[in-house]
Amino acid sequence: MNVISNKWIGQRTIRPDGADKVTGRAAYGADTVMPGMIWARVLRSPHAHARILRIDTSKAEALPGVKAVMTAKDVVEFPLDKSVMLGIQDMRWMCRNVMAREKALFHGHPVAAVAATTEAIAAEACALIEVEYEVLPWVIEIEDAIKPDAPILHDFIKLDGKPSNIAGKLEHKLGDVDAGFAQADVVIEREFKTRPVHQGYIESHACLVSVSPDGKATIWSSSQGQFMVRAMSAYLTGIPQSDIRAIPAEIGGGFGGKTIIYLEPLALILARKSGRPVKMIMSREEVFRASGPTSGSMSKVKIGATKDGKIVAAQGTFYLQAGALPGSPIRGAAGCAFAPYDIPNVHSLGFDVVSNRSKVAAYRAPGAPIGAYAVECVVDEIAEALKMDPLELRLKNAAKQGTKAAHGPVYPRIGFVETIEAALAHPHYKAPLGKHQGRGVASGFWFNAGGESSAQVNVTEDGNVVVTTGHPDIGGSRASTANITAELLGIDYKRVSVLIGDTATIGYSNLTGGSRVTFASAMVVTQSTEKVITTLRERAAKIWKIDPEAVTWDDGEARPAGDNAGKFPALTLAEIAAKASETGGPIGAGVQLNTAGAEGGFATHVCDVEVDLDLGIVRVLRYTSFQDVGRAIHPSYVEGQMQGGAAQGIGWALSEEYIYDKKGRVDNASFLDYRMPVCSDLPMLDTVIIEVPNPKHPQGVRGVGEVPLVPPLAAVSNAVYNALGRRFYSLPMSPPRVLEVLEGA
Amino acid sequence: MNVISNKWIGQRTIRPDGADKVTGRAAYGADTVMPGMIWARVLRSPHAHARILRIDTSKAEALPGVKAVMTAKDVVEFPLDKSVMLGIQDMRWMCRNVMAREKALFHGHPVAAVAATTEAIAAEACALIEVEYEVLPWVIEIEDAIKPDAPILHDFIKLDGKPSNIAGKLEHKLGDVDAGFAQADVVIEREFKTRPVHQGYIESHACLVSVSPDGKATIWSSSQGQFMVRAMSAYLTGIPQSDIRAIPAEIGGGFGGKTIIYLEPLALILARKSGRPVKMIMSREEVFRASGPTSGSMSKVKIGATKDGKIVAAQGTFYLQAGALPGSPIRGAAGCAFAPYDIPNVHSLGFDVVSNRSKVAAYRAPGAPIGAYAVECVVDEIAEALKMDPLELRLKNAAKQGTKAAHGPVYPRIGFVETIEAALAHPHYKAPLGKHQGRGVASGFWFNAGGESSAQVNVTEDGNVVVTTGHPDIGGSRASTANITAELLGIDYKRVSVLIGDTATIGYSNLTGGSRVTFASAMVVTQSTEKVITTLRERAAKIWKIDPEAVTWDDGEARPAGDNAGKFPALTLAEIAAKASETGGPIGAGVQLNTAGAEGGFATHVCDVEVDLDLGIVRVLRYTSFQDVGRAIHPSYVEGQMQGGAAQGIGWALSEEYIYDKKGRVDNASFLDYRMPVCSDLPMLDTVIIEVPNPKHPQGVRGVGEVPLVPPLAAVSNAVYNALGRRFYSLPMSPPRVLEVLEGA
Repeated sequence: MNVISNKWIGQRTIRPDGADKVTGRAAYGADTVMPGMIWARVLRSPHAHARILRIDTSKAEALPGVKAVMTAKDVVEFPLDKSVMLGIQDMRWMCRNVMAREKALFHGHPVAAVAATTEAIAAEACALIEVEYEVLPWVIEIEDAIKPDAPILHDFIKLDGKPSNIAGKLEHKLGDVDAGFAQADVVIEREFKTRPVHQGYIESHACLVSVSPDGKATIWSSSQGQFMVRAMSAYLTGIPQSDIRAIPAEIGGGFGGKTIIYLEPLALILARKSGRPVKMIMSREEVFRASGPTSGSMSKVKIGATKDGKIVAAQGTFYLQAGALPGSPIRGAAGCAFAPYDIPNVHSLGFDVVSNRSKVAAYRAPGAPIGAYAVECVVDEIAEALKMDPLELRLKNAAKQGTKAAHGPVYPRIGFVETIEAALAHPHYKAPLGKHQGRGVASGFWFNAGGESSAQVNVTEDGNVVVTTGHPDIGGSRASTANITAELLGIDYKRVSVLIGDTATIGYSNLTGGSRVTFASAMVVTQSTEKVITTLRERAAKIWKIDPEAVTWDDGEARPAGDNAGKFPALTLAEIAAKASETGGPIGAGVQLNTAGAEGGFATHVCDVEVDLDLGIVRVLRYTSFQDVGRAIHPSYVEGQMQGGAAQGIGWALSEEYIYDKKGRVDNASFLDYRMPVCSDLPMLDTVIIEVPNPKHPQGVRGVGEVPLVPPLAAVSNAVYNALGRRFYSLPMSPPRVLEVLEGA
Repeated sequence: MNVISNKWIGQRTIRPDGADKVTGRAAYGADTVMPGMIWARVLRSPHAHARILRIDTSKAEALPGVKAVMTAKDVVEFPLDKSVMLGIQDMRWMCRNVMAREKALFHGHPVAAVAATTEAIAAEACALIEVEYEVLPWVIEIEDAIKPDAPILHDFIKLDGKPSNIAGKLEHKLGDVDAGFAQADVVIEREFKTRPVHQGYIESHACLVSVSPDGKATIWSSSQGQFMVRAMSAYLTGIPQSDIRAIPAEIGGGFGGKTIIYLEPLALILARKSGRPVKMIMSREEVFRASGPTSGSMSKVKIGATKDGKIVAAQGTFYLQAGALPGSPIRGAAGCAFAPYDIPNVHSLGFDVVSNRSKVAAYRAPGAPIGAYAVECVVDEIAEALKMDPLELRLKNAAKQGTKAAHGPVYPRIGFVETIEAALAHPHYKAPLGKHQGRGVASGFWFNAGGESSAQVNVTEDGNVVVTTGHPDIGGSRASTANITAELLGIDYKRVSVLIGDTATIGYSNLTGGSRVTFASAMVVTQSTEKVITTLRERAAKIWKIDPEAVTWDDGEARPAGDNAGKFPALTLAEIAAKASETGGPIGAGVQLNTAGAEGGFATHVCDVEVDLDLGIVRVLRYTSFQDVGRAIHPSYVEGQMQGGAAQGIGWALSEEYIYDKKGRVDNASFLDYRMPVCSDLPMLDTVIIEVPNPKHPQGVRGVGEVPLVPPLAAVSNAVYNALGRRFYSLPMSPPRVLEVLEGA
């Protein structure tokens, strides 16, 4: 059951998807074509907030080449008074997000869609659709949206009996914060703001959908979950899930942003109407205007500590933008914010605020970077006030096995302390700094997740192995699966091919997200492989005519054991496979499971910056991430996740933001104007993998992908403070803002 | 376990593949394209028999647009002295069949292949390949090939120590034929000839193959078995099976002819060489020249009976053409020939004869129509000699439960008697005949088959069902699977979607052939569905907090039973599916099995013909097939199989044949010159389904697809005799031959 040797687990094996990706052969969402295929375009609202009074599509329908036109009428409507959840998505909001119904709620909100023989004709037809709008007052920022006289997006959302833009609230309480603050020698309270940032995946949303005259549909698309695509498309079109086959393409980045869908139901409806396969690809501008960034936020955090550095009380209030429809990651913000610390008295409060922006989508550790930004900056100030090393302060207060967290759990064995100790001991933390340079540290937490996964492990007739799992491979799940299967079977990892199944060919598997996939797929792959090994032992026993209990499996071979030891020469996997037919049939096994036992992940980051006082540019000089991953099945991918999270967090801290114009329109909807860090903006991002195995997982895996994005916002902020001696309480710390603060000095 | 009601089994449900096929959306072998795809053509031998002295491909390689050239050098060679079997195919012969190695063995034998940016360039390059041949004497017909001085195709094949064209022999013996004939009052011995006939599938062989730089290959092709495609391609290219994904296209007819491959290994080698996806499509002419027809034959059958109509002895010798490489269906000819009868003394002998023709391939009930043709014509003569009704003679001698067959088994419950009784009782058998009209009858047997199959049954989140199996659907396996799954689960069959998995996504499944697929897939689908029902009962028990044993599953619902009966309202499949996550995870189960228990199938056919004495045309006026299928899961498909077999048998009897010219070349390699029956040649073909359930199968299935082709050759022949008063001992009874016989009269 548990891994005996470590021949493949922990090895940097060649990536199964590598050759196809570097040679351009890998097929992404837009890479599939079909005979008779037509193209669809979306007509989007030119207003940030407007009632839709009338839509006349007749001129568009009359345009030669147009094959189908659709509006919200064609989408299944979910009544506003009843929640229908699909994972974290409420279909009430999803049916209104894919196509504006009563109102257009943000600039770029889909209002109609047209399928035509060419994209140009589809675009021309969109322009012929007449929409009569009643333009309404709009609101973009949280501080405006929560004002008593703010324009209200949804009359049915009420707070204290009155229509409100506050759509949800989440609260965690532990102990008595008032009593806690009363014990404190130092109390620091600060307010923070972050701007919405986009996941920035390189591949824009794309799909191809074909519907047969008997209603059976096939969807090819790039997403974080083919089963989510199937389910959500079924809900929004009324087609049974069994009649939809969702085939996952390779995915060119998701980071949470592809855990919901925008195009698939529209393409499906247009394909059904037209009888033709329909292809849709979002332009980059559409991605920026109408796909989810993560929330902007407004937070207030108050922390109290005794003079010997024990944090005794913490309070946090986090307002998160939901976009135009409810559902911001307040759980991640309010739940993760104080999770790294053993604090007896905590009060954490999250508010979900709607405004006339595109609906937010998940973004790595959704909400957690927002919470950590505020908390980790205040912790830094506490350390300064107490004249303590900020890592020593964290070490003193670090959560460990047995700590009761405000968001619920009493922690089992976790590895947070180890990340701080590793940072303290690392040369980076002691390296000298120059003029205008500063060093910051910050820690972070993410829940990690289990949930439903399925695997099938089949032995080929020539004694090799094919493994199928059911979630898109974003962070290296194919490589990890090959390592684990090869390890358990005791064969060369090259003999294991791993593929991603579509919804028709593998059991239900939840999204690739939440840092769940390596954790969960390792579990189902392990159980399936163990079943295969049991079969292999049974087959060897049959060949030898002995009891299966008297057969061991080691190093890719069945061997007789006990009284029979040495009586027969060992049988290899290939030898047993060659006799599969006569000993009982094909050899293979599958497992479908709702996995449990994912345990929290922690990281501590150390960041050095230099500030250019003339240009206001903050340059990251050195960056080291220390993270407990439980067990790194494939270290290169783990490091990639750690580096990627740091890079994205640096962008969030220093340069990325949505800029709105006076009409409530995104003003920088392109990669030229929306400033993500590129290679030349970053140093080599160093990583230190820490492995405190998760005792509830066969290989000790915890999850990797989310945690790396949690600490960077605060780590960079604290570094900038140490370089300049001035604190920023708002992100991004872009050159104009840095100059503003410096000039203010 | 066994079917309780028959709500769906036996119903003519709407075909799951119907809409796509009639609207042209179904994707066949040639319907897949890839970016960067190139085209390949095959250079074929212009000689029927020639040693290959030298191949110079340099000019072809230099032609602009040519991306790769291959010869037998690139194919893995299997030494001649060691048999490596893959199913019924020996890789020694397969590696020489896909590409001529030492010698070109028939006109059209592949000698080289070229992949280029267009088909035209590939064809031009083929013409630039210089092949130096040493032309050898050739032999086409069996009677020539078995002469002592015949040109020998393979020196390593020896008979009695001398090189021979007789490559194999099969013998069945029962009792003592000499003693048996001594008891006989009537003994009739006759010689028969049949010509090779092609399976005549509408879709020619086609494939698209892509190989990644890391060696992983994907094959899209139309075949009777994606796992056969994977295995054979692996053998012939040296790529591990786990690195090949074979994706089955819809198949436009196979009839046995697509149980082997011709193009896939060539395309794979060319794709690997060129780094480009390679597409290949055989022209109809290539299909005729170089893909397998079934054997031509030469038989001698002797049957003796007592004057009261008891057959006491039977002897048969069957020479079957193998084509240029060994492997004709002598087992089907010699094994099935006498299988319908309870004969105490039998000697049946089959010989496999090579000659310079394309290698034969399986064709529905391979070999059995050849054996039955000879035996059923002689039985007809025995009946005439004894002045007995030919059906009464068959009834008197019919095999039944307990009969020992010469080819091995003692029959369990079989339904042969029922087919004769049904024919005797049918109005057709008593209908009056006009001038120059005659009626013939004949019976037939096929083994049927089990073997390896795999299935996966998954419940969707909305409570519908997706089933995947692993063999191409030729005869309606998707529809049958939907009927069975719906029946067992007690839900509407429309809620069940059935798909064919590729080699990566479903467990190993043997070919679609041998009348095995409905038999075997029903078994694995039944077992998988039963596992799902067990899970559904467990989940209901969990929801109710009672013991799973106390839950029944009826009519699509879980109900509390025993002490708990009526305590909780029933839970539907959809209600349980909606709670799958919280009760343990996804609901689904798969089974991989080497199925056993397929039992023989029998049919009796009645045929009326009219002979046009002026034109020599034999017209079939009425045709009725009576067949025991065990259980007809989907009667429309069963009738389709029965009609199709009759139509093909009528073609074999009356018009189809390969005509060779003086240089050993097929002279009628097109559908214009190779005369298959078309609609206007045939009356409505009537069918009577007889159901004597197979006790070894959960639904009673025996198998349907092969038997319908076994009796027609003799049924038509016997009818022609009754119309003309003259017997034909050679097929086809085409107009020139009929006129010949009439003029001879």
